[in-house]
Amino acid sequence: MFRKILFPTDFSEGAMRAIQRFNRDNESEVKECVILHVIDEGKLEDMLNGYSYFYKKEEREMHDIEEKLKEKAMKEMQERAEKCKEMMKAKNIKMLVRVGIPYEEIVKVAEEENVSLILMPSHGTQGFSHELFGSTTMRVLKKTKKPVLIIKTHKEE
Amino acid sequence: MFRKILFPTDFSEGAMRAIQRFNRDNESEVKECVILHVIDEGKLEDMLNGYSYFYKKEEREMHDIEEKLKEKAMKEMQERAEKCKEMMKAKNIKMLVRVGIPYEEIVKVAEEENVSLILMPSHGTQGFSHELFGSTTMRVLKKTKKPVLIIKTHKEE
Repeated sequence: MFRKILFPTDFSEGAMRAIQRFNRDNESEVKECVILHVIDEGKLEDMLNGYSYFYKKEEREMHDIEEKLKEKAMKEMQERAEKCKEMMKAKNIKMLVRVGIPYEEIVKVAEEENVSLILMPSHGTQGFSHELFGSTTMRVLKKTKKPVLIIKTHKEE
Repeated sequence: MFRKILFPTDFSEGAMRAIQRFNRDNESEVKECVILHVIDEGKLEDMLNGYSYFYKKEEREMHDIEEKLKEKAMKEMQERAEKCKEMMKAKNIKMLVRVGIPYEEIVKVAEEENVSLILMPSHGTQGFSHELFGSTTMRVLKKTKKPVLIIKTHKEE
């Protein structure tokens, strides 16, 4: 049994395929699974620039958009939570939404939650199949001290 | 329970630390563990050049050295087999010695044996701690379609 698994997800097809493969190959139960979604602060700034016509004060703007995105992410997570729990054979599920640079938040949460494993898809949301790895996955791999299970999420040839 | 794990080992300290960490974090049993040692054909050629004073025929030379290295590797493996079995909580152990390019053989054996996971230390025998990853680990990660569990084997700061 794995004590505690961190599953960072961008809700992409790749991330869900990673869980499917984990499920196919792992017959043991997981005590706790921490599902983490990181709202990319870089993308948040891009959105800010897009929405700035409708707002007067920049701070207010930032706060509003952040809150809306967090709410949306939490909703998406809750919709997937039961499926994740079942697929991972996890006894408990914890859901987290953070704002920041994705790989930094993943590494931080892994330490804070003292997980025994980080489950990463080889490719995330960008899905550039010509790339060898998603850049977030590569950065997490370099920075964390925790074991990382990389699941290939390319479609089989 | 993991069905079948491939554990490529160069008998280095890093590789043994990877097993220790795997053991610490994983409470489930492993049905079968395939321990693989690859004799690097590049290094074999280097040795050939070194020993060529003592031999007349190059083919004979190659064959002799290869046989001796295989024998030595198998012996080292047998010495570690019981410890690996115990640490991995593995029901069965299979030992393989191959000659070739390490990452290529690892990827090949993973397919041939249809393993459910490849367990790789982040750093192998070279132990250049300034490097982010061992080159064999990096190449396996890029080439295989199997899930890869990367265990950080740097000494904790």
